[in-house]
Amino acid sequence: MDELPNFAACHSALSYAFAVAMPQGPEQFLLELFAVFVSAKVVGEIFGRFRLPSVLGEILAGIVLGPYALAWIRPSNIIYSVAQVGAIFVLFSAGLQISPRDLIRVGSKAVQVALAGVVVPFLLGFGYMKSRGDASSEAVFVGAAMVATSVAITARVLADLRVLSTQTARIILGAAVFDDILGMLLLAVVAGLTSGGAPHWPHLAILAGEAAGFALFMMFVAPRIVSRIEPGVEQLSTQNASLIVALALCLFLSWLAARIGMAAIIGAFFAGLVFADYAPQWNLQPRVAGITEFLAPFFFFAIGVRLNLRLFTGNILLAAAIVSLLAIISKIIGCGLPLLGEGWRTVFRVGVGMTPRGEVALIVALVGLESGIVLQSTYAIVVFMTAVTTLIAPPVLRHLFRGEMQQKDERPAAQLQL
Amino acid sequence: MDELPNFAACHSALSYAFAVAMPQGPEQFLLELFAVFVSAKVVGEIFGRFRLPSVLGEILAGIVLGPYALAWIRPSNIIYSVAQVGAIFVLFSAGLQISPRDLIRVGSKAVQVALAGVVVPFLLGFGYMKSRGDASSEAVFVGAAMVATSVAITARVLADLRVLSTQTARIILGAAVFDDILGMLLLAVVAGLTSGGAPHWPHLAILAGEAAGFALFMMFVAPRIVSRIEPGVEQLSTQNASLIVALALCLFLSWLAARIGMAAIIGAFFAGLVFADYAPQWNLQPRVAGITEFLAPFFFFAIGVRLNLRLFTGNILLAAAIVSLLAIISKIIGCGLPLLGEGWRTVFRVGVGMTPRGEVALIVALVGLESGIVLQSTYAIVVFMTAVTTLIAPPVLRHLFRGEMQQKDERPAAQLQL
Repeated sequence: MDELPNFAACHSALSYAFAVAMPQGPEQFLLELFAVFVSAKVVGEIFGRFRLPSVLGEILAGIVLGPYALAWIRPSNIIYSVAQVGAIFVLFSAGLQISPRDLIRVGSKAVQVALAGVVVPFLLGFGYMKSRGDASSEAVFVGAAMVATSVAITARVLADLRVLSTQTARIILGAAVFDDILGMLLLAVVAGLTSGGAPHWPHLAILAGEAAGFALFMMFVAPRIVSRIEPGVEQLSTQNASLIVALALCLFLSWLAARIGMAAIIGAFFAGLVFADYAPQWNLQPRVAGITEFLAPFFFFAIGVRLNLRLFTGNILLAAAIVSLLAIISKIIGCGLPLLGEGWRTVFRVGVGMTPRGEVALIVALVGLESGIVLQSTYAIVVFMTAVTTLIAPPVLRHLFRGEMQQKDERPAAQLQL
Repeated sequence: MDELPNFAACHSALSYAFAVAMPQGPEQFLLELFAVFVSAKVVGEIFGRFRLPSVLGEILAGIVLGPYALAWIRPSNIIYSVAQVGAIFVLFSAGLQISPRDLIRVGSKAVQVALAGVVVPFLLGFGYMKSRGDASSEAVFVGAAMVATSVAITARVLADLRVLSTQTARIILGAAVFDDILGMLLLAVVAGLTSGGAPHWPHLAILAGEAAGFALFMMFVAPRIVSRIEPGVEQLSTQNASLIVALALCLFLSWLAARIGMAAIIGAFFAGLVFADYAPQWNLQPRVAGITEFLAPFFFFAIGVRLNLRLFTGNILLAAAIVSLLAIISKIIGCGLPLLGEGWRTVFRVGVGMTPRGEVALIVALVGLESGIVLQSTYAIVVFMTAVTTLIAPPVLRHLFRGEMQQKDERPAAQLQL
C-alpha cells in the first residue's frame, strides 16, 4: 500500500517473486487510474459541450492517448479488469431504468422489430464483406457486430429527448433489449462456427436454449422472487442492505451469463431489470450511478485504446463508410418493416432509434480481435461504424420527435449515467 | 468479455502470449468478485446482528475462506488491486464526513492528544516486543502499528452513538486524523530505518516536511481553492460534474501521497476533507457511499486473507493478548494526559475513543509483511490487536457516553459506509 523509500535490503528470493508477481507499484497503478479517468472524463465533457454523446469522447481519449497514437497511456491488465467491471455496471445501470412489465407490454411488437432488425443488418454486413473478398469469419463477425442496438446509448438519447414514456420509445427500448440478447446469442454461435472444424450444433442448441430460458426467467419469474424477498431485505441490519443484495445479484448473474457462454454484461443487464421496479424505493439509482460514473470511463477508454487510427487508409476507410451506411439503412428497413401499418413516422422513428450500436458491437469486435479471428482492420471498421451510428442518431431523432418532446424543465430524475 | 466455446483453432503464438498475460478468464474473475463481495457482506451482516462492528465480520470472512483456513478463495492480484482502491474509498468516505473547519477548531487540543497518544503506544509496544527478545525491526513495526487510531472505525462508532456533534467527539476525530498522519510518517521512517544500512536522515527530513506541508495545505488552502472553483463545477455540462471532480482529486491525491512516500490512503482522506463542506450541496455522500459499499469489502477481506490463524499457538497468543492490552492502556494514558484538567470522564471518553486501530495499523503490518521485514506471526499479532481494540471500544464508549446519546430517531443522514 505504501512505497518503501530506499529499500535496498530486499533482495531475497521471496521479495523477488513478489516483485515479479506485481510488476508495478501502487504508485504506477494509481497514476494509471487517475490518467484514464480524468482524460476520458475531460474529452467526454468537451463532447458534451458540443451536444455530442460523451461516450464517444471517452472512446476518443483512449484512441488518442493509447499505444497506437500518442502512447502516453499503456493500460495494464488491471485497468482492463476494471474496464470489464465498468462494462458490467454500464449495463446494470441501463437495466435499472427498464421495468420488466413495460418490456412485456410491448413484447410482441418489440420482438418482431428486433428479429427483422437482426436479420437484415446481419445479411447486409455479411454480404458486403464477402463481396469485398474478406474471409467468411471476418464477414460473420462484422455482420454480428451490426446486429445489436445499444440499449445504453439509445436509452440515454431518448431520455435526453424526454420521450422515454412514449409508446414508440418503449418499442425501441424493448426491441433494443431483445436484439442485444439475439446479438449475444449470435456471437456465441459465430464464435462456435469460426473456431475451426465443424460447428458443434448440439452445443449451439443448448446455448440457444439456455439464453432463451435465462431471458424468460429474468423477465417473468425473477421480479416475483424479488417482490417476495423485499420485506426481508428491508429488515436486514447491514446499512444499505438493498444495494448489497442488488450488487450481489449483479455480480452473480454476470458470472452465470459468462459461465453458460453468453457475455457477462447480459447477466448484468437482467440483474438491473429485476430491480428496476424497486430502484426508486430502495434508492438504488444514485448509488449505482456513482459506481457507474467511476468505472464506466475505464471501459470506454479501453475500447479506444485498442483502435489503431492509422489503419484508416483509403481501402479500409471506404469499407468503414460503406459498413456504417449499411448499418443505418439495414436497421431502418429491418425495424421499419413490421411497423409499416403504423405510418411512416413510426417507421422512421423506430428505425433511426434502433440505429446506434454500442457495447455489444464493440464486445463482438473485441472478442474477434482478442481471439485472433478478425484482423485489426476489421476491428477498426466496427468501431468506426459504432461511432458513426451513435453520432448520427441523436440529431435525426431530435428532428423526428420534434413536437412530442416534453418541457425542458421536466427533465426526468432517473437518467442513464454514461 | 465472452467465453469462447470449443475454441480449438487458437494455438497461434499470439493467442498463447495472450493466455499467459491473462492467466484467468473473465468467468474466474467474476466468480472471485462475487465470492469475495458476498462472503464479506454476509459475515459482516451477521456481526451487525450481534451489534459487533461489521468491518470485523468482513475481515473474518477473509480469514476463514482464505488460503490459510478453508482455502476456498485464493484472491488474484486483480482482487488485491481492487482492495487497494477499496482502501482509498474507505478513507475518502471518512474524510467527506469531517469539515476542515471543525478540525481546525479543536486543532491545538487534538494535536496534543494525538502526539501523546502516539509516543506512549509506540514506546510501550516497542519495549514489550524487545523484552520478548524480538528483533528491533519487528519491535519497531509493532510499535508503529499501535500508533494510529482508525478514523474510519472511530467515526462509525461515534456516528452510531449519535454523539458526533459533541466537543469530545470532535477532539477524538481530530486527534485520530492527526495520529493517522503521524502514523504514516512513522511508517515511512520505520521503513527507511529498517531497510538495512544507516537511516537516510536527509531523506526522512524531507519526507517529514512534505507530509506536514501536505497536511497543512489540505486543511488551510485547498478548501479555499474548492470554494473558488465551485461555481465553475456547477456549470459543467457533464452529468455529475461535482462527483467527477471529487473522484479525480481523490485519485490524484492518492497517487501524489504515494509518490512522495506516504500511504495513498492519506491522500484520499485529505481529498475527502477538502470536499466535506460541499458534500451535502453536491450530493456526493450517497454516490461515493455506493462506490465504497462496493469496493470496501474487498479491502477488509484481503486483510483477513493474509492472516494465518494457526499461528496463534500459546506463545504468540499470549504476546497478542499483551500487545492488545498495552494498545488499550497506552491510548488511555497517552490521550488522557493532555486532558487531565477537563475531568476523568473526558479523559476516559477520549482515551477509549482513541482505542480502535484499523486501516493504518493493518497497512503498517502489511508493508512489513510484504517487504519481508516482519514475520507472519508479527503480522498476526497486529491483526489480533486491531480486532480486540475495535471490539472493545464500542460497548465501553456506549457506556461512557450514556446520557448524551441523542434520540434513536435522530439518526444522522450522513453515515460512514463500511
